Amino acid sequence: MHNAAQTMKAVVYDGKGHIELADRALPRIVEDTDAIVRVTRSSICTSDLHIIHGAVSRALPDTVLGHEFVGIVEEVGSTVKAIAPGDRVAVNVETFCGECFFCKRGYVNNCVQGGWELGCRIDGCQAEYVRVPFADNGCTPIPESVTDEDALFLGDVLATGYFGAEIAEITPGDTVAVIGAGPVGLCAMMCARAFGATTIIALDIDRSRLDRASREGIADIVLDPNEIDPEETVRSLTEGRGADAVIECAGTPATFETAWKIARPNAVVSVMALYEEDQVLPLPKMYGKNLVFKTGGVDAHCLGRVMALIEAGRIDTTPLITHRFPLDRAMEAYRTFEAHEDGCMKVVLTPIGE
Amino acid sequence: MHNAAQTMKAVVYDGKGHIELADRALPRIVEDTDAIVRVTRSSICTSDLHIIHGAVSRALPDTVLGHEFVGIVEEVGSTVKAIAPGDRVAVNVETFCGECFFCKRGYVNNCVQGGWELGCRIDGCQAEYVRVPFADNGCTPIPESVTDEDALFLGDVLATGYFGAEIAEITPGDTVAVIGAGPVGLCAMMCARAFGATTIIALDIDRSRLDRASREGIADIVLDPNEIDPEETVRSLTEGRGADAVIECAGTPATFETAWKIARPNAVVSVMALYEEDQVLPLPKMYGKNLVFKTGGVDAHCLGRVMALIEAGRIDTTPLITHRFPLDRAMEAYRTFEAHEDGCMKVVLTPIGE
Amino acid sequence: MHNAAQTMKAVVYDGKGHIELADRALPRIVEDTDAIVRVTRSSICTSDLHIIHGAVSRALPDTVLGHEFVGIVEEVGSTVKAIAPGDRVAVNVETFCGECFFCKRGYVNNCVQGGWELGCRIDGCQAEYVRVPFADNGCTPIPESVTDEDALFLGDVLATGYFGAEIAEITPGDTVAVIGAGPVGLCAMMCARAFGATTIIALDIDRSRLDRASREGIADIVLDPNEIDPEETVRSLTEGRGADAVIECAGTPATFETAWKIARPNAVVSVMALYEEDQVLPLPKMYGKNLVFKTGGVDAHCLGRVMALIEAGRIDTTPLITHRFPLDRAMEAYRTFEAHEDGCMKVVLTPIGE
Amino acid sequence: MHNAAQTMKAVVYDGKGHIELADRALPRIVEDTDAIVRVTRSSICTSDLHIIHGAVSRALPDTVLGHEFVGIVEEVGSTVKAIAPGDRVAVNVETFCGECFFCKRGYVNNCVQGGWELGCRIDGCQAEYVRVPFADNGCTPIPESVTDEDALFLGDVLATGYFGAEIAEITPGDTVAVIGAGPVGLCAMMCARAFGATTIIALDIDRSRLDRASREGIADIVLDPNEIDPEETVRSLTEGRGADAVIECAGTPATFETAWKIARPNAVVSVMALYEEDQVLPLPKMYGKNLVFKTGGVDAHCLGRVMALIEAGRIDTTPLITHRFPLDRAMEAYRTFEAHEDGCMKVVLTPIGE
Repeated sequence: MHNAAQTMKAVVYDGKGHIELADRALPRIVEDTDAIVRVTRSSICTSDLHIIHGAVSRALPDTVLGHEFVGIVEEVGSTVKAIAPGDRVAVNVETFCGECFFCKRGYVNNCVQGGWELGCRIDGCQAEYVRVPFADNGCTPIPESVTDEDALFLGDVLATGYFGAEIAEITPGDTVAVIGAGPVGLCAMMCARAFGATTIIALDIDRSRLDRASREGIADIVLDPNEIDPEETVRSLTEGRGADAVIECAGTPATFETAWKIARPNAVVSVMALYEEDQVLPLPKMYGKNLVFKTGGVDAHCLGRVMALIEAGRIDTTPLITHRFPLDRAMEAYRTFEAHEDGCMKVVLTPIGE
Repeated sequence: MHNAAQTMKAVVYDGKGHIELADRALPRIVEDTDAIVRVTRSSICTSDLHIIHGAVSRALPDTVLGHEFVGIVEEVGSTVKAIAPGDRVAVNVETFCGECFFCKRGYVNNCVQGGWELGCRIDGCQAEYVRVPFADNGCTPIPESVTDEDALFLGDVLATGYFGAEIAEITPGDTVAVIGAGPVGLCAMMCARAFGATTIIALDIDRSRLDRASREGIADIVLDPNEIDPEETVRSLTEGRGADAVIECAGTPATFETAWKIARPNAVVSVMALYEEDQVLPLPKMYGKNLVFKTGGVDAHCLGRVMALIEAGRIDTTPLITHRFPLDRAMEAYRTFEAHEDGCMKVVLTPIGE
Repeated sequence: MHNAAQTMKAVVYDGKGHIELADRALPRIVEDTDAIVRVTRSSICTSDLHIIHGAVSRALPDTVLGHEFVGIVEEVGSTVKAIAPGDRVAVNVETFCGECFFCKRGYVNNCVQGGWELGCRIDGCQAEYVRVPFADNGCTPIPESVTDEDALFLGDVLATGYFGAEIAEITPGDTVAVIGAGPVGLCAMMCARAFGATTIIALDIDRSRLDRASREGIADIVLDPNEIDPEETVRSLTEGRGADAVIECAGTPATFETAWKIARPNAVVSVMALYEEDQVLPLPKMYGKNLVFKTGGVDAHCLGRVMALIEAGRIDTTPLITHRFPLDRAMEAYRTFEAHEDGCMKVVLTPIGE
Repeated sequence: MHNAAQTMKAVVYDGKGHIELADRALPRIVEDTDAIVRVTRSSICTSDLHIIHGAVSRALPDTVLGHEFVGIVEEVGSTVKAIAPGDRVAVNVETFCGECFFCKRGYVNNCVQGGWELGCRIDGCQAEYVRVPFADNGCTPIPESVTDEDALFLGDVLATGYFGAEIAEITPGDTVAVIGAGPVGLCAMMCARAFGATTIIALDIDRSRLDRASREGIADIVLDPNEIDPEETVRSLTEGRGADAVIECAGTPATFETAWKIARPNAVVSVMALYEEDQVLPLPKMYGKNLVFKTGGVDAHCLGRVMALIEAGRIDTTPLITHRFPLDRAMEAYRTFEAHEDGCMKVVLTPIGE
């Protein structure tokens, strides 16, 4: 470990609605399957805000926040094989054992020993160092031609966008509608493209987010549901049918309703958003439409594929980065992110003094 | 046509909540793709009651009811190729063209020229003869070793049960829970077995229906949610996980809730019931459970497969038949069916004077 | 019909190894499902040479050659619904009814009434007009923004390349090796990209073809098996494993052997080439490698998808066009194509006097 | 360990074409992931003969033979979690790590640390005790209602039959032809049935094997290719098309040819046999038939499913057992098995003195 002081700065959640930048002991290997990673880039995610607001019941107090990051492996446990000290890695938001009933089927989000642990139930990445359990599963090596910032979102928002596109059963030539042009939505659009979608329709009520999606070539058509009727407009774009697949990344009653309305009969609706309320499923109204709703959290078991897409230049998430702060200005970073200041999309935390 | 009188008896819906046994003109070929079928067995379905109760908005007045039947082809239009006069056939509840965007993908329920037409928008099968549009698609020949009553439910409740099992993505060794042990539920159980399910759990609050499922060997385990807690019980039967697939055939708020609760994470929930009310999807509570909900009506595009299962003795729906009446006593048959008299499951209408 | 003379120029195969430019009667509607199409662009295909050389036993003498073309619908039979006179269409090499056992499953190449008919058993497209049977299935409308030459290869070499990529079960991030950088191979590469392949390896012994693949950005890596050992090289590019999928478009014993050697264990090998000889399958040597070989001709049932890829600019086959001749110089066109003169890849026949 | 003597009897291959019953030291835990299993039932497999005949190049001399067995766990390494001493288990022929590129995709036969090890490269099960590497992956617990002999073939011939049926992409109602009515073939037939096949056609030239398949209800139709033309007969049974899937378990040039001839166009041919010679793939003759050949060894990653089928009574392999010998009469057992004496199908080795 290259840190003589044996302490580090970290963003700590106190369990009562507050966070602070605190000094913490450096993490150590606990299990043979652990790795210690020195964080080179981390980010703030809407889920961090959910924790602070007390909306994530599984979150534990006195925990270092943060679950989306890249870094350099410092040390590995005795049974770690896939990575070694010195490797640059992107780390998965989900911790999973790889061996249980669910992991064996690729349902790593339901790992009996894991799920969302980092920055929620165990110390996360908004710090100088972090302990990564089941490191062989959780770390994806970063190829030489890929920068840290290119790979930064792999483990969470990009993984989620990829999963949303993957389960949407897209085939080449499809028209895919994505609701929400925030970080997850933009990632879902890029991934839908990688699966062969030829028309990407972005829906959002934030004009600047639609403009970004359009300007960066991420979406082909952008729609503001406050200005047009989404169902009618999507139908008019699809010979009257509706979108071949819908990925809902916004998480409100209005967007949930829009999702099933703009889908064509027999479409898949990927419900990727984290809802704070129950939703209404008007089955009598949609009877015979034969929709498939796929709900839930990312199963981030195949990030090597997504890294290959980054490496090949097929996915570029760097336009999501709008702000950067060193770790010791993390409180300012949080304020900027929460207030959506200056069109803030994603805030990156960089090493102190870099 | 072997009927000198040129009229026939038929059960006619008057559009105002009543039906009557009336005299109607014999049907004639209208389109080149039509067939005229002499009905040898038909049945009454819960959907017929829905029409009479005014709950099916697409239903038209002055229509002959009935959409589940077998018969003998009397005459075919000039472009019909797959069947010929004299053939015994089971007829599909859905009318479909086979050529539109949806039909080409197997989504025949959303055929732009079809859907549920027979006994709803055009004259149905509770009569002596019936006109079947797109007869090449709608008729499945009955092999010699299969009786009329063996094949009777192919076109509706059995097709629906098969579809519910098919889309549930069952693999051999799975535990499948079916909610509702009525006609569709029992068919779904038989078909889940054909897809390799090794443990079939039936849930119903009607003890006699559970007993039938058990006695006939259709279900392995029967549960009455009024007596036990279904979530806890299904978990205890599945090493704490829940059912690998759930097929919901009952259609109430309570059964919809049971459906997602007894499913294991990442399971498919086939929602086959016809709901009269909107349902609540408690996404926050099920976040991370990654359930897949498949909603809607049967896509009855592959009834040859189901007929092969009947012919091979893998599916036997004759235990569903509890009552038989000749067509001229159809009013009595309806009363028996609606009142669930004498444990009535399915009522069969037979030819007058047979 | 806009041709007063009632005759037209056409390339006719005499059944004995020769072709000639002849005068033929204009085609007429024969079946209700036919269309007459005025050819605006057609091409010459290696299969045409196979016919002339007597290697296609199903080919009939006195037949107009040609099966890859676009044109304008002149007239349609009484039951044709999907297209109308004046429509610009790309036409499918395969004729299929859409209704038989095989068509219903998407295996249109094995249609009991069809298969490769045009320019083989019935008059083809190297003429001014052509009759297209089952026109609703065989014609794909060309969107306004797509030129005739953009769409020209849709019905044969591009459909074949798409099919080869589709059945190869590519997932995003895969490394796909394509053997043969001729027309079908280049199309397969473009389509593999559309399915998400991030590394396309082209193998060919014709340096100029490899250069084109590289220059146009169609392949990421090009290999000449005369210069390197393909198995060793592909392994070194894939962490020792081999390609995730292989599409063999060359058709020789050497390339067949290369195909299975460069595939990683459990890969799909799409065998798209038309072989003139039996091949050796060294099962003892490949035991445990668990390869999947998918053999045969294109099932061109979903050309709307491919047209959407063209329209979206995801596939551009115009670099394949190296030569153009008017139809009345077709003999010269054939000579150029057969001799591979001037790096000839694809020859296009244009209307006389255009 | 309950064996005071610290030695045991074992069938040892000397590397030069001979085997002998020898005294060997008891196996011990070597890796943390190992288990020691006391063998309660093992069997002899054709692969054992292949080793003795020198046809398995990966086999090492001085190795205890045997790879198909059940037993009781005696001891486990420190990281073994899924099983514990006292558990009854069926053991997998393949050793696999569960973590490498191939294992993560379910291709455990190509595990970089495993494959066929037991009784080939490391000591196998024709002994009193055996060390099982990666025991969490290799052992499937046996439910109480399943006897040792019910479960005996799970790890090899039944796993192989299941795999052959699984990759054949059977859907309910299919006609499946299985070539070879020996142990693997019979298992494949039972499993094809579990996947919903309604007509099982068995082909073999050994009349007594066909009779057993017929008598036990394992096959619906049995055919001897020496008496009838298999292609013509299978076509006549399938409306002229051929079998929907073919599983080839015999391994000769004649049966390989039969396999593709009796398959309908677009069928899967599962090539499960171990061939001693290269085979001929007559691609010109089968062009357009669009067959899929799936080659190779079992990927035995999901034996829990197969155990569930045994437990439910859907698969019963006990009719395969024709002979039993105690381990100390193993030489006699081998002679009986190799000579096919008394209709010998499978020989079981039982504990000495049981």
